[in-house]
Amino acid sequence: MPRVAIDVLLKREILDPQGRAVEQALPGLGYHPASEVRVGKHLEMVVDADGDELASQVERMCEGFLTNPVIESYRWRVIADDERADA
Amino acid sequence: MPRVAIDVLLKREILDPQGRAVEQALPGLGYHPASEVRVGKHLEMVVDADGDELASQVERMCEGFLTNPVIESYRWRVIADDERADA
Repeated sequence: MPRVAIDVLLKREILDPQGRAVEQALPGLGYHPASEVRVGKHLEMVVDADGDELASQVERMCEGFLTNPVIESYRWRVIADDERADA
Repeated sequence: MPRVAIDVLLKREILDPQGRAVEQALPGLGYHPASEVRVGKHLEMVVDADGDELASQVERMCEGFLTNPVIESYRWRVIADDERADA
């Protein structure tokens, strides 16, 4: 069964205070500076569907439940077991 | 300058109540069931470094600031502009 990774961020035109806070904190804490920092949600899950059915089910749950499509956008992909962020 | 995406999840052996809540809610709300749901953080940022220098800077900020390495693990990759989650 495919394992799906979903990334959710505030839309580009929406202010992201958490990203701004990270961006401003990095140099002061002794880290390499970064720009255009955005902070959002990452989900991984196993979904029992394939192909077009998988795409339509994942997009339906993203648009109806996992994100707020007014202010957030998302991107999803199928990942291998060794691409899990908790691997 | 490379754009970096960082995914952070609780380690696999740590209970993820938010993932559990999503998993339990999906079927009741009329969505396709999913299993092994994990919910974490997704960050995107532009970092002015390349190659080994980029890797060492990103890993240092992940381990020292962006994650709690006791309970969280992360994975990072360089993404193209059209792979941005807010694209």
